[in-house]
Amino acid sequence: MKIMHDIITKRDLTVPAGFDDFLPGEAIVLQRITDVIRRHYELAGYAPMITPLVERPDVLFAKTQGEVTQQAYGLRLLNPSPEARDDSKDLAIRFDHTVPLTRAVVSNRHALFFPFRRYAIGPVMRGERPKDGRHREFIQADIDVIGDEELSLVHDAEMPAIVTGIFKELAFGDFTIRINNRKVLSGILAAYGFDTPNTSKQALDIVDAMDKVGAQRTISALERISSLSGSAARELIELIRTDGSIDDLLRLLRVKSYGDDVNEGLDELEQVINASCRLGVPSEILKFDPSLARGLAYYTGTIYEARLDAYPDLGSIAGGGRYENLAGSLSDHCFPGVGISIGVTRLVKRLIRREIVQAKVTTVAPVLVTLSEGTSDPTVAAPIAAKLRAAGIATELYLENRPLRRQMQYADKRGFSVVVTTENLARGLLRVRDFTTGEHIEITADKLVETVRAML
Amino acid sequence: MKIMHDIITKRDLTVPAGFDDFLPGEAIVLQRITDVIRRHYELAGYAPMITPLVERPDVLFAKTQGEVTQQAYGLRLLNPSPEARDDSKDLAIRFDHTVPLTRAVVSNRHALFFPFRRYAIGPVMRGERPKDGRHREFIQADIDVIGDEELSLVHDAEMPAIVTGIFKELAFGDFTIRINNRKVLSGILAAYGFDTPNTSKQALDIVDAMDKVGAQRTISALERISSLSGSAARELIELIRTDGSIDDLLRLLRVKSYGDDVNEGLDELEQVINASCRLGVPSEILKFDPSLARGLAYYTGTIYEARLDAYPDLGSIAGGGRYENLAGSLSDHCFPGVGISIGVTRLVKRLIRREIVQAKVTTVAPVLVTLSEGTSDPTVAAPIAAKLRAAGIATELYLENRPLRRQMQYADKRGFSVVVTTENLARGLLRVRDFTTGEHIEITADKLVETVRAML
Repeated sequence: MKIMHDIITKRDLTVPAGFDDFLPGEAIVLQRITDVIRRHYELAGYAPMITPLVERPDVLFAKTQGEVTQQAYGLRLLNPSPEARDDSKDLAIRFDHTVPLTRAVVSNRHALFFPFRRYAIGPVMRGERPKDGRHREFIQADIDVIGDEELSLVHDAEMPAIVTGIFKELAFGDFTIRINNRKVLSGILAAYGFDTPNTSKQALDIVDAMDKVGAQRTISALERISSLSGSAARELIELIRTDGSIDDLLRLLRVKSYGDDVNEGLDELEQVINASCRLGVPSEILKFDPSLARGLAYYTGTIYEARLDAYPDLGSIAGGGRYENLAGSLSDHCFPGVGISIGVTRLVKRLIRREIVQAKVTTVAPVLVTLSEGTSDPTVAAPIAAKLRAAGIATELYLENRPLRRQMQYADKRGFSVVVTTENLARGLLRVRDFTTGEHIEITADKLVETVRAML
Repeated sequence: MKIMHDIITKRDLTVPAGFDDFLPGEAIVLQRITDVIRRHYELAGYAPMITPLVERPDVLFAKTQGEVTQQAYGLRLLNPSPEARDDSKDLAIRFDHTVPLTRAVVSNRHALFFPFRRYAIGPVMRGERPKDGRHREFIQADIDVIGDEELSLVHDAEMPAIVTGIFKELAFGDFTIRINNRKVLSGILAAYGFDTPNTSKQALDIVDAMDKVGAQRTISALERISSLSGSAARELIELIRTDGSIDDLLRLLRVKSYGDDVNEGLDELEQVINASCRLGVPSEILKFDPSLARGLAYYTGTIYEARLDAYPDLGSIAGGGRYENLAGSLSDHCFPGVGISIGVTRLVKRLIRREIVQAKVTTVAPVLVTLSEGTSDPTVAAPIAAKLRAAGIATELYLENRPLRRQMQYADKRGFSVVVTTENLARGLLRVRDFTTGEHIEITADKLVETVRAML
């Protein structure tokens, strides 16, 4: 028996806290999910734009404040050569896809076509304290459509349609897209006295946390930051948590006459929901939720959040909204936009941990071509693999000299669907085994591609 | 006329030197090339493994020295909150995919199956001086197969087969994969007196630069670092630059009897080339070049480099080789491997600059559905787009109220293939225009999908 001496250095070979490896089983799941997301983004006419991980700190902080600023990473040369001019102080790592989008849109305005639709799928970094399994590097899959001074509300309706397409195809079970409009929630909060920018933001954040802390603590928190009585706070929470059909809720809130902002929000919401229907979103998926807040300060209109019905504790699987100006202080030109974002890293890790998806198959190739036991020529099966690959069938070629039994165990453990063995190749025969049914047949080489294809 | 005030702040909105934006036209090209690469990696049975951009500096520098160490970036929090424990000194950015592979293989050895095949497609960073258009962040697309103590030479033959598949499909024109074996070149250099680790490395680097500086300066450089006479140096260079068929060169070098190492290298080379043929690599693509050095110190056997025949100045489009131990000082277990790498960012930027590929189409969706002029309902065409998307046909829905003429100009500039107009939708008719031929036909809505599909 071979004794394996391992790691002879004292080096720590774990991944730093907050960072994640995706070994092949998990990476295949992540790729599949990312591919589906990308396909639906492209189906709706969104094109890729790829910006670097690096932005100037000056740009990164132009619009942001608060926690995310404290989480932003910059670069530094670890061992600069003595003669190097280290300009890495001007290099920071993006913490979302929105700032790079803003910078690219403002600086390439005359080269882009508006409304500008783009997707961005890639990593961003935040220096979170790595408690609660928070990720410091995570893949975000975003789409945004940016108008030049104006942007039709129908764009807002494309977002639920795209989310619906993605999660129908991914088939993790039923899901609901909650939809609201910031003008509605802010307007109702204003009617209850949260009418300054400061108290409005505070109240929004408190309502945003209601999913986590429950109604009672939300009511107490609202009381604490205002002169609101307990019963008024309770009335407010009960109102925004009213359950009902979209039409009933629209009617209820219109009757209450909360003022122009709320009515404008309700009109927008109605238009967006109607347009979503015409884009094929089934009515049972879309739910008007007046309590939906979405934390980010910059949303100004439609907001969305999707969850899996059977796993509400998984949290948001997609979210986004409308903002009245992407550029903020970077331009005095106005770029209204609407977008959604899917946190792929977080989603995939949770789906696997909860066993909603399996990460056991470690091969992307469905077919394994084995090596004949004790053969002197390890290339004997190479043309078999080449033929399958040329037909577009991903195929691994087993090349180590091992008993066939062990090669079969290997095929089973890695999750191959079909195994081609070459014991009788000298007589022009191949054995093709369907690993799903356990059946196998012997064929001549000219039948290879069609036989394998029929098993996949 | 609208006067546009731009950038009201003084912020620098350019991308930092050495970093690159890929606006949609370029990003679509990059995506297409990356998709083809990935498809061929998967066809050969390589699975994804995704590691973070971040590694511990201690791990990053375990095997490396020299220039790349001075180029390594670390992270730092830009504005840490006063109470934050800033542990970012333990976080560095990968400068290649090989170090993360090593760390992941050594630390997950018991969870992986060997030979372990994985691909990694993603960004890496190096703090290069950003002259000569060098990239500081660039996407590398790597495959490696790692054995546990042993690894069949046929794996070396899979690499040229995969490279051939990729560049045949990409169709940038004819290409050549030069192949050599480090034992051959090192053995010949040793026979000419470069036989210490130090002089051998120096001589390899000098030969490696021959493509750029030419034969004469290579000869002078070899003379300078040794006691070699000018005529002996010239003889050496002429020998390794000998042109000829693979068989002729193998015979020539065997006859010269340079010793066991060279003969072992020649035997390996012959096996790898024969196996490549059996895997379908056409003989005109593979060329034995005894002068091929590949800079990296860690190659120990087969080495490859591919170039486009018509654009040799584009440099290497794919390269790689065999290494006798991936793990080095991180484990006393031996992990032999072989791999190739494609520098996607560099390749794409050069292909576009040289106009070998066009980056003019800015839509991934082939179909545009226009909005009827002056319609009061902007959602009228939504079900048309939804129908095409449900059939898997990527479709952009034009939603801004513009004259049809302007919508057509937009379709033309962005590169749509088919435009569906909805002027006569009230009468149940759609007009489908093929933008390639200029022809258009009027159809009923039930013929939409088949009509559009026939034009794509």
